[in-house]
Amino acid sequence: MSGIKKLRTGQKDADKMNAGSKQALFVMQDLNRSTNVVYQAHHVSRSKRGQIVGTRGGFRGCTIWLTGLSGAGKTTIGFALEEYLVSHAIPCYSLDGDNIRHGLNKDLAFSATDREENIRRIAEVAKLFADAGLVCITSFISPYSKDRDEARKIHMSAGLPFFEVFINASLEVCESRDVKGLYKKARAGEIKGFTGIDACYERPETPELVLKTGEQTVNECIDQVLKLLRDQNIVPSGVLEEVNELFVPENKLHLAVADASTLPTITITKLDLQWVQVLSEGWASPLKGFMREREFLQVQHFGNLLDGGTINMSVPIVLPVSTETKEELDGCAAVALEFQGNRVAILRNPEFYEHRKEERCARQWGTTCPQHPYIKMVMEGGDWLVGGDLEVLERIRWQDGLDQYRLTPLELKQKFKDMKADAIFAFQLRNPVHNGHALLMQDTKRRLLERGYQRPVLLLHPLGGWTKDDDVPLEWRMRQHAAVLDEGVLDPDSTIVAIFPSPMMYAGPTEVQWHCRARMVAGANFYIVGRDPAGMPHPETKQDIYEATHGSKVLTMAPGLTSVEIIPFRVAAYNKAKKAMDFYDKERNADFEFISGTKMRKLARSGENPPEGFMAPKAWKVLTDYYSSLQKD
Amino acid sequence: MSGIKKLRTGQKDADKMNAGSKQALFVMQDLNRSTNVVYQAHHVSRSKRGQIVGTRGGFRGCTIWLTGLSGAGKTTIGFALEEYLVSHAIPCYSLDGDNIRHGLNKDLAFSATDREENIRRIAEVAKLFADAGLVCITSFISPYSKDRDEARKIHMSAGLPFFEVFINASLEVCESRDVKGLYKKARAGEIKGFTGIDACYERPETPELVLKTGEQTVNECIDQVLKLLRDQNIVPSGVLEEVNELFVPENKLHLAVADASTLPTITITKLDLQWVQVLSEGWASPLKGFMREREFLQVQHFGNLLDGGTINMSVPIVLPVSTETKEELDGCAAVALEFQGNRVAILRNPEFYEHRKEERCARQWGTTCPQHPYIKMVMEGGDWLVGGDLEVLERIRWQDGLDQYRLTPLELKQKFKDMKADAIFAFQLRNPVHNGHALLMQDTKRRLLERGYQRPVLLLHPLGGWTKDDDVPLEWRMRQHAAVLDEGVLDPDSTIVAIFPSPMMYAGPTEVQWHCRARMVAGANFYIVGRDPAGMPHPETKQDIYEATHGSKVLTMAPGLTSVEIIPFRVAAYNKAKKAMDFYDKERNADFEFISGTKMRKLARSGENPPEGFMAPKAWKVLTDYYSSLQKD
Repeated sequence: MSGIKKLRTGQKDADKMNAGSKQALFVMQDLNRSTNVVYQAHHVSRSKRGQIVGTRGGFRGCTIWLTGLSGAGKTTIGFALEEYLVSHAIPCYSLDGDNIRHGLNKDLAFSATDREENIRRIAEVAKLFADAGLVCITSFISPYSKDRDEARKIHMSAGLPFFEVFINASLEVCESRDVKGLYKKARAGEIKGFTGIDACYERPETPELVLKTGEQTVNECIDQVLKLLRDQNIVPSGVLEEVNELFVPENKLHLAVADASTLPTITITKLDLQWVQVLSEGWASPLKGFMREREFLQVQHFGNLLDGGTINMSVPIVLPVSTETKEELDGCAAVALEFQGNRVAILRNPEFYEHRKEERCARQWGTTCPQHPYIKMVMEGGDWLVGGDLEVLERIRWQDGLDQYRLTPLELKQKFKDMKADAIFAFQLRNPVHNGHALLMQDTKRRLLERGYQRPVLLLHPLGGWTKDDDVPLEWRMRQHAAVLDEGVLDPDSTIVAIFPSPMMYAGPTEVQWHCRARMVAGANFYIVGRDPAGMPHPETKQDIYEATHGSKVLTMAPGLTSVEIIPFRVAAYNKAKKAMDFYDKERNADFEFISGTKMRKLARSGENPPEGFMAPKAWKVLTDYYSSLQKD
Repeated sequence: MSGIKKLRTGQKDADKMNAGSKQALFVMQDLNRSTNVVYQAHHVSRSKRGQIVGTRGGFRGCTIWLTGLSGAGKTTIGFALEEYLVSHAIPCYSLDGDNIRHGLNKDLAFSATDREENIRRIAEVAKLFADAGLVCITSFISPYSKDRDEARKIHMSAGLPFFEVFINASLEVCESRDVKGLYKKARAGEIKGFTGIDACYERPETPELVLKTGEQTVNECIDQVLKLLRDQNIVPSGVLEEVNELFVPENKLHLAVADASTLPTITITKLDLQWVQVLSEGWASPLKGFMREREFLQVQHFGNLLDGGTINMSVPIVLPVSTETKEELDGCAAVALEFQGNRVAILRNPEFYEHRKEERCARQWGTTCPQHPYIKMVMEGGDWLVGGDLEVLERIRWQDGLDQYRLTPLELKQKFKDMKADAIFAFQLRNPVHNGHALLMQDTKRRLLERGYQRPVLLLHPLGGWTKDDDVPLEWRMRQHAAVLDEGVLDPDSTIVAIFPSPMMYAGPTEVQWHCRARMVAGANFYIVGRDPAGMPHPETKQDIYEATHGSKVLTMAPGLTSVEIIPFRVAAYNKAKKAMDFYDKERNADFEFISGTKMRKLARSGENPPEGFMAPKAWKVLTDYYSSLQKD
């Protein structure tokens, strides 16, 4: 029996989980002064578990008690909430008439006593689920304050959070819905004691939340509940892909600017500033700034951030500095980041650690080839990395006429909301759009409509940061994309064109995860992935650096991408018979012609036209204009 | 409301989860013929979740109904089982008198009707937990067959697994335990209707399991329950670190040998054979053979196997073959592996995929330096990898006089059991043991005793596979270790010396995880990790390839190492004042001298003695003998 001790999966343990991992590092020392040593052993292993599998660790059980009239929308809200939590790997369970009235409470009728007992038992069961670490959602009219207060008391005395959520719709609204025809029967006197008709509903006086289902959409209601859960630390922020912007709030800007002007500075490059933009706008949420060593190691070894849930993060977002800078600034409480003479951000509590460049490149790119254009930049950069909490003074603007397209995740989310989008599918690109891409986007939209979505929106999201020299520059790509929309190849009414501010890393299966998760943060729930994401030829072997199918395979298996569905490409090629781009069919191989990027560029460079139907003519014109502008230079 | 549909976390969904990921790859195609498309969307995202966070996915909810006399051990078994499941990240919850009698059932007394109602409600609540995907453990006397049958019926009609487990201890045993003094009171007539005394207990007639707690230890009982859970597919094997041996069963050996003799062969190297040994003995459980591409990609990108839980696996275990071999054998249903003319194993359903060596080395070692001795072997090996299901015909033996020390994980587990070990702490080494190592092992043991373990056992586990040329050969290391035990530096009675058959990869933080998880499979629950695991100097820069603290940092954060506690090294150095190895204390820096491996080898090579107290004299003698034997050659 020794070595096996009692462990209860209760709330108190869950509260203590967060500090676990650090503690593990020092367990040898701690043991010296530990009295409750056996508990500590559990503690360490449970906290590790929490970080890894996201079960309970980081999440606290609670009960969300939905109350309101019949037809107010309790079940709808309950299911939508459950769906959301399940898809975000947060353990939850719903109690409702279906699973309670025919089971546990089948011995109860509708007398006053039985109704009271009904609610009491539900509260007791909800308490057990909350104690088990689940978010328990109850959907019952529960019309009497006394019963609801009793339910609350049952939870409070067990130290478990209880949230009363009033699903508030007027009797008129509820009666007009009358999904089950119950109001009609009640009005006809066929049902006696029906709440709202001939029995009273006591409105909650101080509920934690009121949801006006007659005025708000389900999604808006769910957002409110999720905000409550975050505010109450039931679920950690980050897990719910909350966008974590790193801008200094308006009312503190004055102070921060003054502060920054007194701090020692680190001069950053344009590439660094692009990463500052990425971080500040929240694409890398929940990162609070450039990665510290702990985060860096998690990313390099496990492709995920592991503290507080498994959060996909496959690429290091780091700030290299020279040894001189490190030696000068190590120990400072804060430093300012300066770009072209302007102090753009403060890095608080900086942590300097070795930039082991060879190892970093090997793990990030699967090669250390020094001619790889991004690796080249890494190898030429500083020998130290500095992590820390970033406070960005102002939004990063590039004044290139394209800033209006640089929408932050929050701005994109607002746009989607304004458009009443119910499905957002993202398409990452750093190349001109040809009709093969368009076919895929059209096809995805059609399928989403078939699946019952009513307003799918395409996020056409060209990458706007650093790219290698021979890629088509952002400015020309944006013109090309505009032409594609202009010609109606993509539907302008259900498409948002915006710029993703990240630099391109040409890191294949590792990078495709970054591309996907960043769009997930911006609200995309579908991500289209191609045959060869982010591929470029190996500078030495001239073969593809990455196997063509690995990007889509790895993305499909990647942990931490819970709230987005991966839509793998079907290969599109030019169908000579149809004179159009078409999904490749090996049965009719002879009909198809593969037009490579190289071939496309060659045609455009020489001012020739591609086969009919390959690309919208106006869009092709942009490309040939670009290449002829090059020749002029 | 569109896009948000009802999703119930029930059993039926869970059953369908396994195939999810493959399906995701083909979702575009599938959608064409899918009618229930909205469900499919959930399905895909839920199955992903399952793989990632190990919540419910791969696990099926069920109820384990413990029944038996008061004092039979229901609560003890229940808690031990819960502890085990929790520490293995399997969601579970216990219902017992504590949380039921004072809550849900506080309105019930002990009349016959109330007792029946008590059990009915418990069964209904258990059903809800099982439906939520948890393993629900109930610990109640539940003396009547009728009530238990009713509980079973409640689960069956909901399609949820129900396991009746009879905790069988005789009345005499239970009464002799009488923890709460209840039997005494019942005998004295102070309690009426006490089961076993003046009320009957109806023994289960066909329980799923009988646990004889009077004869078996708690651990033995738990093993039986876990076997049941695995057999019933409630939890996948592998997650419970079941040792998955790949030997052909005795009764099928004849057939398999005959089969192997007819198959085309792949000739393997000594290094490959060492991996065959590792796989066949189950160190890499749940791997069923050399990795297939899917497993290989998971390991390279996420350091874990992801199908059916998050299972730590940081190094590829792969079989390289030449292009000729691939072209000859691709498409075969099975091949035989041949070593020095002997067919040692069958590889079924082989899968050939590209051995992208540069990428593989970069991700595994964080360097592609071709002078690194293991990387050198990789680069010289075949351009293809072949994965497949391995059936090993005979135990791998090396006939070097050391086979008796090559204990399999199952043999080690049996040894620990025979020794009645209640804590096993493992020490990995590929070098001679000096008193600094010994100090750490002694210290760990002392601390485990302080923590309440009564019989901690040290697994001194030298690595026995391939090592680089200048390491001390296994044979000499084994002699050295024997001398250390012989001199009483380590306690022979609580130490097992065995050989870990794996090759050494010199892969730093990546490899240390492999070292740890393999020992976990063999039953170790504590793993000692040093300052610089598996370090060697970078062949080009001569600096350490890995930062000295990364091994222990990464190991402490590594997902999938749930059932082992990491014990980080404290740095030991030679204390000149004490004339002994001692934990380094920077306050008394002047007292300490660091004796590097290089310095140690230099002394041994020149036949000199190290400072007094550095290493047991007999053990030092082995080392000097080894080096002088080299000079003779």
